[in-house]
Amino acid sequence: MNVGFVGTGTMGQPMVANLIRKGHAVLAYDIVPAALEAAAALGARTAGSAAEVAKRSELIITMLPSSPHVDAAFVGPGGVLEGAAPGHLCVDMSTIEPATSQRIAAAAKTRGVRFLDAPVSGGLPKAIEGTLTIMVGGNPTDLEEARPVLAALGSNIVHVGPVGSGEVAKICNNLIAGVAMVAVSEAFRIAEGFGVDPKILTEVISKSSGNTWAMLHGHPVPGMVPTSASNRDYAPGFTTDLMAKDLGLAVNAARQLRVPVCVAPAAQQLLRLASSHGLGRKDFSSVYTFLRPSSDRAPV
Amino acid sequence: MNVGFVGTGTMGQPMVANLIRKGHAVLAYDIVPAALEAAAALGARTAGSAAEVAKRSELIITMLPSSPHVDAAFVGPGGVLEGAAPGHLCVDMSTIEPATSQRIAAAAKTRGVRFLDAPVSGGLPKAIEGTLTIMVGGNPTDLEEARPVLAALGSNIVHVGPVGSGEVAKICNNLIAGVAMVAVSEAFRIAEGFGVDPKILTEVISKSSGNTWAMLHGHPVPGMVPTSASNRDYAPGFTTDLMAKDLGLAVNAARQLRVPVCVAPAAQQLLRLASSHGLGRKDFSSVYTFLRPSSDRAPV
Amino acid sequence: MNVGFVGTGTMGQPMVANLIRKGHAVLAYDIVPAALEAAAALGARTAGSAAEVAKRSELIITMLPSSPHVDAAFVGPGGVLEGAAPGHLCVDMSTIEPATSQRIAAAAKTRGVRFLDAPVSGGLPKAIEGTLTIMVGGNPTDLEEARPVLAALGSNIVHVGPVGSGEVAKICNNLIAGVAMVAVSEAFRIAEGFGVDPKILTEVISKSSGNTWAMLHGHPVPGMVPTSASNRDYAPGFTTDLMAKDLGLAVNAARQLRVPVCVAPAAQQLLRLASSHGLGRKDFSSVYTFLRPSSDRAPV
Amino acid sequence: MNVGFVGTGTMGQPMVANLIRKGHAVLAYDIVPAALEAAAALGARTAGSAAEVAKRSELIITMLPSSPHVDAAFVGPGGVLEGAAPGHLCVDMSTIEPATSQRIAAAAKTRGVRFLDAPVSGGLPKAIEGTLTIMVGGNPTDLEEARPVLAALGSNIVHVGPVGSGEVAKICNNLIAGVAMVAVSEAFRIAEGFGVDPKILTEVISKSSGNTWAMLHGHPVPGMVPTSASNRDYAPGFTTDLMAKDLGLAVNAARQLRVPVCVAPAAQQLLRLASSHGLGRKDFSSVYTFLRPSSDRAPV
Repeated sequence: MNVGFVGTGTMGQPMVANLIRKGHAVLAYDIVPAALEAAAALGARTAGSAAEVAKRSELIITMLPSSPHVDAAFVGPGGVLEGAAPGHLCVDMSTIEPATSQRIAAAAKTRGVRFLDAPVSGGLPKAIEGTLTIMVGGNPTDLEEARPVLAALGSNIVHVGPVGSGEVAKICNNLIAGVAMVAVSEAFRIAEGFGVDPKILTEVISKSSGNTWAMLHGHPVPGMVPTSASNRDYAPGFTTDLMAKDLGLAVNAARQLRVPVCVAPAAQQLLRLASSHGLGRKDFSSVYTFLRPSSDRAPV
Repeated sequence: MNVGFVGTGTMGQPMVANLIRKGHAVLAYDIVPAALEAAAALGARTAGSAAEVAKRSELIITMLPSSPHVDAAFVGPGGVLEGAAPGHLCVDMSTIEPATSQRIAAAAKTRGVRFLDAPVSGGLPKAIEGTLTIMVGGNPTDLEEARPVLAALGSNIVHVGPVGSGEVAKICNNLIAGVAMVAVSEAFRIAEGFGVDPKILTEVISKSSGNTWAMLHGHPVPGMVPTSASNRDYAPGFTTDLMAKDLGLAVNAARQLRVPVCVAPAAQQLLRLASSHGLGRKDFSSVYTFLRPSSDRAPV
Repeated sequence: MNVGFVGTGTMGQPMVANLIRKGHAVLAYDIVPAALEAAAALGARTAGSAAEVAKRSELIITMLPSSPHVDAAFVGPGGVLEGAAPGHLCVDMSTIEPATSQRIAAAAKTRGVRFLDAPVSGGLPKAIEGTLTIMVGGNPTDLEEARPVLAALGSNIVHVGPVGSGEVAKICNNLIAGVAMVAVSEAFRIAEGFGVDPKILTEVISKSSGNTWAMLHGHPVPGMVPTSASNRDYAPGFTTDLMAKDLGLAVNAARQLRVPVCVAPAAQQLLRLASSHGLGRKDFSSVYTFLRPSSDRAPV
Repeated sequence: MNVGFVGTGTMGQPMVANLIRKGHAVLAYDIVPAALEAAAALGARTAGSAAEVAKRSELIITMLPSSPHVDAAFVGPGGVLEGAAPGHLCVDMSTIEPATSQRIAAAAKTRGVRFLDAPVSGGLPKAIEGTLTIMVGGNPTDLEEARPVLAALGSNIVHVGPVGSGEVAKICNNLIAGVAMVAVSEAFRIAEGFGVDPKILTEVISKSSGNTWAMLHGHPVPGMVPTSASNRDYAPGFTTDLMAKDLGLAVNAARQLRVPVCVAPAAQQLLRLASSHGLGRKDFSSVYTFLRPSSDRAPV
C-alpha cells in the first residue's frame, strides 16, 4: 500500500524501515531536513510538506514528539488536513494528549477524513524489531483497514475504544509504570540503608503484594535482573525524559478531568528533577541513582 | 512447646487458635482484659503480665499494634525482659520500626535473651488459615528453633537477614504495594473520565509495563477481578489505616536514613486523608473511591 | 468610551456595573443567555456574538472562566477576531494559561488587532468595589490607552512585562498564596494536636520566618483574624475551586517550561480533593477543615 | 549563677561565650572532646559527663543536634537525670521532637527535676549576637527562674504553653518557612521561564496575597533583597540540612498525631534531595538553584 509517513525522527526511522522491508511504498516528510534525508536513505520517497504526503497517500502515519507538533502537522498551514481527501485514513502514532487526538479527529471528520490514535509502547528496541505494542482508539473498521500496515510495525495491536482511547491506555499504563519504578527505587534505597540484601528482598517482594513489572523486568538496582537497563549504566530502554513527559500528559489530563491525583505528580516532578540534573537521556530506572541518601553528617 | 503469647487482639487471636490447634500450650497476656479473655476462651492459659509470660515460656511471641506498644511490652515495667531468662527466645511478629526491633534486640542481648523480628503479611484471612507469610530478621539458628512453632501460623517463612530485616522487608514491600494501589486508582480514574472501558484497560495493562500485583489481585474498580475487596464494598483485606501506618513506617525510616522519598509520602498522606474522611477501616483499595473527580462545574 | 464586554458571568457583572457607573457605554455578550440578561439589567446594550461586540467597540474586554473559553471567544467562529478591525484594542482579564494569551496575541497581531492580558486579583468583593489589582502584560502604550477604562475596575494597575506577563504574575502570586495557605493549615493542625494555643502560635509566627499573608489576612483557623473567611463558615473570598484552577495553571506552565515543581502540585491536588469532597465553593482556607486528623483508634 | 551546659558544638559555643560574657560561671560537657576543649578555651570549666554537670549546676542547659542525642544526654548512662538533684532546672534548647521533650520532662518529674523545652530561632548569626528568639514550653514559674540566664542568649523569649510547646512552635514556624521558600522558588522559576523580570514580580507579590517572609527577607533569587543568602552564594543563614530536619520533625509529629499533611512532606523531600546533591550546607534558599529546568530538548 502507498503509505505516507510524517515524522521520521528517532522512532520514525526504524518504523519506515520496517514498512519498506514489508513491501510498502513510503512517502515521507519531516520538518527537519536531516530526519527526512535519513528516511530517503532508507528507501522512502520524500515530499515537501505534510499536506503533500496526505494528498498522495491513502494511509497517512504520523509519529511526532508532542501535542503541539501533531497539532501543527494536521491543522497548521501545509498540514495533513490541507492535503487529505475525503476517505483518507490517518493513523497518529505519537504519544500526545488524548484531548488533542479527539480535537484533531473532529477536525478531520468535517473534511471526511478518518483518524485513529495509535500510540506505541516498547521503545526503540521494539520499533527496530517491528514488535511494538500498538494501542488504538477510533473506529474498529478503520483499524481493520490499517491493520496490514500496522502489522509491519507491531506484534500486539489492541483496539481500546473510541478516538483518544489509545492515548488514554498508553498514558494510564505509563502512569503506573513510572510511579511503580519510583516506588521500587525508594523501597530498595531504604533496604540498602538498613543493609538488607537486595537479592533476597527482590525474591521476597516478587512473591508478595509489592510485585510489579517495574521490579521484575526493569529492576533499578544493578545486578538483580539480567535484562534491566541498570546493568548497562542505565542506557535506555525508555528515557527519564519520555517518562516525565508521559506522566505529565497523565497529570494534565487529570487536571482537565478534575480528577485528583497524588502519586503521579510526585513521580512526574521527581523525574523532571532527575532530568534537570543530568539523567534525562538515561533509562528512567536511573531515578534510583538520583535518590541517593544525604551525607550521614546531615542532622536528622 | 510452651509458647508465650503477648498481644491477643484481632490478629493475635486466630494465631493463638492455630497454635493450640497444632498442639502447643499457650500462655497468653494482653493489657486489654477483653482481649485476654478471648484468648482464654480459645484455650490459652493466662498470665498477669508480659514478664510472667516470659518467665514461664521458652518461646515468647509478641503481636502488638505499634512501636511504642512493643517498646512497653519488652522494656517497660512488667515487660518481657523482666521475666525472660538467659537463652529464652523472643519472636516479635508486630509490624514496627526496624530501628525499634534493633534496639530491643540489643537490650535483650545484654540479658542473654535472643530476639527475632518476624512481621507477617496476608492479613486476617491468612492469619485465620494459618498461611501467613513471615519475614524474619535475626540469627538463622534461632529461626530454625522457632520454625516448628511459626509453621503453625504461616506457610511461607523467609529469613531475610540480621535483626530488623524482617521489618525492612515488610515495610519495603508495603511501600510498593501501597503506592502501586494509588497509582492504579489514579490511572483508572483518568481512564473513566475519558469513558474508556476499565475491563479493556485492565487487559492492556496486565500485558504491559504497568502490570502490578495491586491491579491483578486487588483491583480497586469493582467488577474487574473476582477476589478483590472492591467487589464487597471494600471490606478488608488490609485496611487503609494499616497501609497508612506501614507507609508511615517506611517514610520515617527513610527520614532517619536520610534517603529521599517522594511517592511513598504522597501515598501515605493520601491514605491518611482517606482515613480522616471515613475510609480507615475499609480496604486500602477504597482510596479509588476517595479520588473521585470534582463537580464538572468547577473551573479548570 | 464605547466598551465591549464579553463574559458577563459572576465576576463580569460587577465589572460591567462599575464601567457603566463611571460613564462608559457597554456593549455586552455572553454565550449564556441568563448572564447576558443580567448585563442588560445593569444597563448594558447586548450583542449577538463576540464578533459583533468587537466590531462595534474600540476597546473590548473579555472576562471568561478558562483558556478554552478565551480561545473560543477570540479565534472560534463568531469570535472577537472575526469582528475586530485593525487598531482595535482587546483586554483579556480572564485568568488563563500565559501561553494561550501569547498565542491569541499573535493571532490578533496578524489582523492588526492589539491585545493585553490583564488578569485581576481581589475576588468578587473587590470586583464589586472596583478596587481590583490588575496585572497587565503587553505594550505599555496600549496599557495607557486602556487605563482610563481599567481605572473603573481596579485601583492598582501594574504593568508587568510583555504579553502573557500579567498571567504569569497572577499565577505565580497564587501559587505562593495557595501553597502558603496549605502550609499554615498543616502547621496549625499539628499545633492543635499538641494542644498549643493557636492565638499564641499566631503571635509567635507573625514575628518569625513563617510569617505569610495567608496567615495574617486569611487565617484558616476561626477566631484568629477578624476579617478571615474562616470566621464566616469559609464563605469566599476566593474559592477552593478557583485556587485549584490557578495552581493547576501554574503547574501546567511549569510542565511546558520543564521547570520542576513540588509543593505547587501537592497543594493543587489537595485542593482538588477538597473540592471533590464538597469544599469547592468554600473559601480555599477551608482546606484546614479538610486536613482533620484520623480517629485516634487508627494505628500509627 | 552556676550554669551547666551540655552540647558545646557549633551552636553551643557562642551561647557559652555569651553566658560567660554576662557573668555566669559555666560548667560544660560534650561527648566530642574537641567541642569540649572549645568550651574550655572560651572560659568554661569542664566536666566528665552530663551527670557531673547536672550534679554541680542549679540550671542545666542542653543544646544537642537531635532527639536521640537529647534522649541519651538525659536518660542514658551518665546522663543529666543521674546527676540532677530534686529541684534542679533543665532547659533543653535543642530542636527535637515535641514528644521526646514531653517524655523526658515526665522522666525528670519522677525525680523531682524540672524541665523546660526552649528551642531557638535565628541561627548562628543571632546565637553569636545573643539575640536568638527562644520559644519556651513548660511551667511559667520555671521560665521566670531561667529568664535571667536565657536573657544572655536571646532577646525575644516567648512562653508558648506546657512542656513540648516550644518545640511545637519552632517546628510549626519552620514548616511554613520551609514550604514558603520552596513555593517562592517555584514561582520565580516559572516566571523566569516566561522571561518576566523578577524585580517587578517581587514588587507585585509583595503587595498581594503571595507575600511571605521567605520572599521579603530570604529571597532565593540573587539581587532581589540586599540581605538574602542568595547574594552570597547561599552561604547560610539556615542550612538546607537543618530545614530538612525541621520539616522532618514536623511531618513525623503529624504522623504520630494522625494529621494529614501534604506540602510539608513535599518540601521536606525536595530539601533532602537537594542535600543529597550537594546543597546540604548551603542556605535552604539554594533550593531555588536545585529547581533548574531540564534541557529544552526534553520532550513535553
